[in-house]
Amino acid sequence: MELDASTLPALARGCAILGAGGGGDTEIGLLASLQAVEDHGAVPLVDLDELDDEALIMPCGGVGAPTVSIEKIESGDEGGRLREMVETLWNRQVVALMSAEIGGSNGIIPVVWAARIGLPVVDADGMGRAFPEIPQVTMEIAGISPNPAVMTDERGNVIVFRATDGDWMERMERAAAVEFGGMSWSSEYQLTVGQAKAGAVVNHAVSLAIRLGTVVAQAEHDPVEALAREIHAARLIVGKIVDVERRTTAGFVRGSATIEGLDADAGRTLRLEIQNENLVALEGERALAMVPDIITVLDSESANAISTERLRYGQRVTVIAFPCDPIWRTARGLELAGPRHFGYDLDYAPVEDLHALA
Amino acid sequence: MELDASTLPALARGCAILGAGGGGDTEIGLLASLQAVEDHGAVPLVDLDELDDEALIMPCGGVGAPTVSIEKIESGDEGGRLREMVETLWNRQVVALMSAEIGGSNGIIPVVWAARIGLPVVDADGMGRAFPEIPQVTMEIAGISPNPAVMTDERGNVIVFRATDGDWMERMERAAAVEFGGMSWSSEYQLTVGQAKAGAVVNHAVSLAIRLGTVVAQAEHDPVEALAREIHAARLIVGKIVDVERRTTAGFVRGSATIEGLDADAGRTLRLEIQNENLVALEGERALAMVPDIITVLDSESANAISTERLRYGQRVTVIAFPCDPIWRTARGLELAGPRHFGYDLDYAPVEDLHALA
Repeated sequence: MELDASTLPALARGCAILGAGGGGDTEIGLLASLQAVEDHGAVPLVDLDELDDEALIMPCGGVGAPTVSIEKIESGDEGGRLREMVETLWNRQVVALMSAEIGGSNGIIPVVWAARIGLPVVDADGMGRAFPEIPQVTMEIAGISPNPAVMTDERGNVIVFRATDGDWMERMERAAAVEFGGMSWSSEYQLTVGQAKAGAVVNHAVSLAIRLGTVVAQAEHDPVEALAREIHAARLIVGKIVDVERRTTAGFVRGSATIEGLDADAGRTLRLEIQNENLVALEGERALAMVPDIITVLDSESANAISTERLRYGQRVTVIAFPCDPIWRTARGLELAGPRHFGYDLDYAPVEDLHALA
Repeated sequence: MELDASTLPALARGCAILGAGGGGDTEIGLLASLQAVEDHGAVPLVDLDELDDEALIMPCGGVGAPTVSIEKIESGDEGGRLREMVETLWNRQVVALMSAEIGGSNGIIPVVWAARIGLPVVDADGMGRAFPEIPQVTMEIAGISPNPAVMTDERGNVIVFRATDGDWMERMERAAAVEFGGMSWSSEYQLTVGQAKAGAVVNHAVSLAIRLGTVVAQAEHDPVEALAREIHAARLIVGKIVDVERRTTAGFVRGSATIEGLDADAGRTLRLEIQNENLVALEGERALAMVPDIITVLDSESANAISTERLRYGQRVTVIAFPCDPIWRTARGLELAGPRHFGYDLDYAPVEDLHALA
């Protein structure tokens, strides 16, 4: 498959759905990627099976607060600088770029860079969704080192990090992203195709996003219904956003959104807790869904996903939740990205145990 | 000359005097260096003329807030890690360490590392004093690149920075130092011996510090008087500290100290403005001395310099000021480290134009 004007709009739509509200706004990423493929030609989407086991994959994307990412956009050269430094540090060539997270704009930005530097994008990612923190990737679970990480900004500054562990990588990168103004661009957890094939990534994440975007675009009557069936999602509430609280702090967006039910859901109130992504959906004291499962806010008409930085009073929305990649339900997966990691006193319960799925 | 138990105490004393209150507490640095030379043998102090012009010098020291440096001390391995990464990045060997700043503990810490890794220390530094910010070094004035900079902490994290300019190096390194807990250890502005000889460093800074420390130690009657004569210092006030305001913020110590005059100076009040170092000495609206000239607070009895983080109510002190290295009085020197750089609406006036010097 090729990533070009015929597939990128569906990819953007699918990335937004998989993003759980995070990963950055897909509209800007879509515009940048359309421009890049117009200028430099389509980007091949390659399957892991097409690549040599010894070849080096460069995961990459943005680090910072989504609220900032819609105002402070990349220059386009960041990916080239990251690749150059990664190749220097590894003393070998990068064969393909990979989205560190398929969710949100981070699922598309690697396409922009790949077009500009003439590399393919591999059909996989490191999350199957979006998460706020650096070590919340499947490569960490697989025991791949985050080192060396490379970060750059739109000005041309470059930083190389060698951390004692993933937590220190998160702290160091976050501090640098904040100093750069709240957003920056990075690569960490570089890996070989062989390691990726052995389960260190979420395979076929890009084609999944394109498929979801296509389902929504081609739905004849009720795109929300069509999408929910495709991904086996639970509908948590259909309603209206009545309150949004949002702070950009310490390199994250933190806050909450409150949705009041309409029609069949009249009288119900759902509260989403946010750290870049939608982490937990609460009705009163009861958790209706929680990380690592994917909670996404859809426009009730179009089924377009609304990112956390775009939530606002009055939007008519349907909140859905659907199962994450199974790797996040392992002990190590939950330790890295389960509700307790984010400070919630909740035992993880899979969304399908809490609700009938579509 | 060798740096060992016979010379290190004088070096520490001299570094404190040249530090303008900053560069970190010399007591801890002295203890660490005495231990290092006991364990590993004396460190040769080499003159630039003894080294090959093509050889690489590694400037190094601590970055952060002096208030933190007296509680969060280095593990000893930091210098070895910095050297290893510098040698990797340059693909050549480091022939000698150099204090990036001779002032305070930063004039001694390279001796600790040199002893442990078996390298000499070169008799020079990059300031001839201490300054709070990374690009405030003579190498910057000489057009040497700050890249690549290497930073490490006591845990073993390592960061490499390639900045677009010295100001961005300062911002990135400061943010990392804050994340590391307020102190870290770094090398930047690596240079060849040839560049150093051509004027990119302050030559003989280490032997100067030892000489000043020796003068104070050997003074028979009035060590303050002996020191003032040796360095041609003006005595700004003799008095008692009556107020200290100090905040550890954004990787710096900021604040002020107020000294009330005693005896001949009774009725006078001097205020020192502090950012790690003593920046400006004010009597009412009038500046009695200012950066880049060196303002140092001495214990009136012993002539031991008191660092900004050790100032406290009731200390009997003599505040002296003496001329900085001439390179700081050039247009570029004043732009980098003159009073306006630090936000003071003052035209620089050399200390010898304001006072009769000893």
